[in-house]
Amino acid sequence: MTVLLSGRWSAAEGERWAQLLREAMPEEQWLLHPPRDAAEAAAVEVAVVANPEPGALSGLPNLRLIQSLWAGVDRLLQDPTLPVGVPLARMVDPAMNEAMVHTALWAVLSLHRRFFELQAQQRQALWQPPPQLRASECGVLVLGLGELGGRTAQALAGLGYTVHGWSRRPRELAGLRCWHGEAAEGGLASALAAADIVINLLPLTPQTRGFFSAERWAQMRPGACLVNLARGAHVDEAALAAALDRGHLRHAVLDVFQQEPLPPDHPFWPHPQVTVLPHCAAQTDPRTAVPQVRANLAALRAGQPLAHLVDRGQGY
Amino acid sequence: MTVLLSGRWSAAEGERWAQLLREAMPEEQWLLHPPRDAAEAAAVEVAVVANPEPGALSGLPNLRLIQSLWAGVDRLLQDPTLPVGVPLARMVDPAMNEAMVHTALWAVLSLHRRFFELQAQQRQALWQPPPQLRASECGVLVLGLGELGGRTAQALAGLGYTVHGWSRRPRELAGLRCWHGEAAEGGLASALAAADIVINLLPLTPQTRGFFSAERWAQMRPGACLVNLARGAHVDEAALAAALDRGHLRHAVLDVFQQEPLPPDHPFWPHPQVTVLPHCAAQTDPRTAVPQVRANLAALRAGQPLAHLVDRGQGY
Repeated sequence: MTVLLSGRWSAAEGERWAQLLREAMPEEQWLLHPPRDAAEAAAVEVAVVANPEPGALSGLPNLRLIQSLWAGVDRLLQDPTLPVGVPLARMVDPAMNEAMVHTALWAVLSLHRRFFELQAQQRQALWQPPPQLRASECGVLVLGLGELGGRTAQALAGLGYTVHGWSRRPRELAGLRCWHGEAAEGGLASALAAADIVINLLPLTPQTRGFFSAERWAQMRPGACLVNLARGAHVDEAALAAALDRGHLRHAVLDVFQQEPLPPDHPFWPHPQVTVLPHCAAQTDPRTAVPQVRANLAALRAGQPLAHLVDRGQGY
Repeated sequence: MTVLLSGRWSAAEGERWAQLLREAMPEEQWLLHPPRDAAEAAAVEVAVVANPEPGALSGLPNLRLIQSLWAGVDRLLQDPTLPVGVPLARMVDPAMNEAMVHTALWAVLSLHRRFFELQAQQRQALWQPPPQLRASECGVLVLGLGELGGRTAQALAGLGYTVHGWSRRPRELAGLRCWHGEAAEGGLASALAAADIVINLLPLTPQTRGFFSAERWAQMRPGACLVNLARGAHVDEAALAAALDRGHLRHAVLDVFQQEPLPPDHPFWPHPQVTVLPHCAAQTDPRTAVPQVRANLAALRAGQPLAHLVDRGQGY
């Protein structure tokens, strides 16, 4: 098959992926975007993409599969020229799942055991042990119970935390209480009010854009913490800064931002209650992701079901 | 029974423990150290202690049990007046076990995923995602496989790390490779050489005092990290600073020090490769420790076996 590779990445990063994909699937014809002519465009049956430029996938009349290398497909779905009716698969990479769980555990442990405060104390040569709460006394709410949220919630429950989960669709996961539904505002409000730490792993959809608004902070406990590992567009950053500054929220761990890289003069950089991560909570690992691409291409060729297809109506 | 309570702690901390112990065991006669006279001293059958002053347990002719509230008994055993032949029990507190495992996980996650470096980058408004290694690519060695070390090693294995353990006596633990023996210097040297992160949870004994010497750093990988959650006296601090400064060790997370509180002018406070914790990795929680004391007092009264007795010859 002819496979078109298209991403918004550095030349080095693009070349690295191209080489790994070619090595793993020498039986395919690999093209780098853009196709040279109409004949080449007509030959393309699969597009392997990493947040391609809008329009990059138009003009491919025989496209049968769009395979994303990244887990989040919100930017892809915002492209109005994205071919309709072509199956779109997102990446579910075991290494990325592991990295996300680990980042979430690190953030929760840091917040629960006051390690950020202790590091600030170190800069003042201040020896002051904090009170030690049990994990069971710390309520953690995981928003979004898909591949990443579900694993994160269960890992936290395994460490003894009192874990709640919330998702749009009903889910049942051992070790935690699951709430669901867009309409069940009562359920969401109760879950938010019971949490000391809220972890955002929601997909970015028109419904979840701006999810963390001034009203949402008001539903959270005084002294609660936010861990945003999903998308910057979920958060009203000015309202978050205000909630931190007036002490309603204790701390925020943010991996994603409205604008990335975070501009050098952004007030989050020097904010003592904000931990800034450079969108590194969980990255796709080519060593485990390339075999996923290969498996989906083999399934396509064999007419077997494709893995991790996106429901475009739901947005994930 | 008459129980003497003796600790090296603040008046408030002592009063808090006395109140909790009295409430949980109103059937016992509780005395605060020192006994008023020889008759009162003669009545004492049990001493419940928290690093008492040397000599505090002498002159108690009818003492049948010394129950420590802390897990570490190295300071107790250094008291030359400690009554011989009286059973000595250390504290094994589930809340403390949990806290120690959590602190170790936090330290390993921080080191593996470069979160200390990312926090330093934040202070420079620097957006620079680090490379992402799998947990399985990160070798962790846990020194000491007792109650705390064993649990810590298994929790790390559960998160996917490649875990090795070392202890004086042979141990077998699922999910990790265990080395043992004082004489097996080859085994210890190999285990140290294979570790990216070394976690110290050894008991402090004459054999382990000064364990981390200049020679020991030389056995460790360039770029390795140390997490010391046991005792400051395990570490030659000047040699550690030298190994960090010349870049042989990447980072140290230290909860314990030769002198505590760490003196305000100690070079570890401002050291960019040292994370200082104020001896708070794991504290005994009265809510779960008091029932352990109560169970051992009931066992003593009933002539049943006592829990968590220390082998004074071994020192733990």
